[in-house]
Amino acid sequence: MPSTPSAASGAAAGATRRGRPGYDQQSVLTIAVDVFNKHGYEATSMGILAENLGITKSAIYHHVPSKGDLLRLALDNALDGLEAVLDDARASNGPADEQLEFVLRGTIQVLTERLPFVTLLLRLRGNTEIERDALARRREFDHRVAQLVDAARSEGSLRSDIDPRTTTRLLFGTINSIVEWYKPGGPISPEKLADDIILMVFHGLHSS
Amino acid sequence: MPSTPSAASGAAAGATRRGRPGYDQQSVLTIAVDVFNKHGYEATSMGILAENLGITKSAIYHHVPSKGDLLRLALDNALDGLEAVLDDARASNGPADEQLEFVLRGTIQVLTERLPFVTLLLRLRGNTEIERDALARRREFDHRVAQLVDAARSEGSLRSDIDPRTTTRLLFGTINSIVEWYKPGGPISPEKLADDIILMVFHGLHSS
Repeated sequence: MPSTPSAASGAAAGATRRGRPGYDQQSVLTIAVDVFNKHGYEATSMGILAENLGITKSAIYHHVPSKGDLLRLALDNALDGLEAVLDDARASNGPADEQLEFVLRGTIQVLTERLPFVTLLLRLRGNTEIERDALARRREFDHRVAQLVDAARSEGSLRSDIDPRTTTRLLFGTINSIVEWYKPGGPISPEKLADDIILMVFHGLHSS
Repeated sequence: MPSTPSAASGAAAGATRRGRPGYDQQSVLTIAVDVFNKHGYEATSMGILAENLGITKSAIYHHVPSKGDLLRLALDNALDGLEAVLDDARASNGPADEQLEFVLRGTIQVLTERLPFVTLLLRLRGNTEIERDALARRREFDHRVAQLVDAARSEGSLRSDIDPRTTTRLLFGTINSIVEWYKPGGPISPEKLADDIILMVFHGLHSS
């Protein structure tokens, strides 16, 4: 199992402080994503990145040809993870509400495991070709989840008094909001978080 | 009933296009908030604001002494609205779960009526004294809602298998996410949106 992005980030930051960078592309990427999230992609120059990595700009170019390539690699990391959830057989077999629950749990897992990468994806404005391509993939992911919501509703397992588009918006709103507060390695495990969210959105907070 | 910020913004933009500004402080503020939300507060200069308003920088200073004052007025607009919900008698009388529902509905109403102002509040980073003061008021609001969640849980009306802090996070995450997609004046009324959110978070999406 790969280490979480934030664990990798911590290790790399430690390496910087010890003055022994020894970066590979993945650790450059992990730190770059943290800097993009902190200052915004547009506002981050290769000079700022070099400063945060404790290496020279030309050393960064040894790993990636441009800032845009770092962005593309980071967004691919988030989107590949999300799309893999939909490509799993459990996302297209069985009752639609079970497929939907599988996809929501998988999405939560990707968010917690690749938190800084998904955070970057969720904050995109679409100012460049790379960003627009990523937003198109994100829309396609959202569209396929919306189809599952429709199917679960047609099956009669989801309530029909909420518009399916609103349902999809609220599901993503709830799940995506965890990037604002969830701390990987903190008191709540990713599995418990997924259980809590599934409980609330499908069964509600009121004690039955 | 006051017009929504976005309606006011539309009218002011129309005035700009017709070359008849005739701004008062409120319309300067409304446009400034839209510009802050689009470009970020830090990145917005008084020059950019003047360009968007179609007036000179000195004409802006006629309305407000500084960019910081515009930010403070905008954040007060959002926070005054949220705090008024808690100050209503219905937020502190009756069963705790009814108080909580009243406060969540009121919060959703403030979000939809003052959408750009609350959006600005939710995106704050806390880089200046004005931002830190606003974040402190926001934390106090969140804290009082968390107390209602605790009280409703103690009363036995909220499920006890989700940590109350997670419950509060998920409630705010769901509600605050509407600033990302809700269109005032669109097909979903603020009342229907509040009904939908209350249904999902308290009773769940599964058909019973």
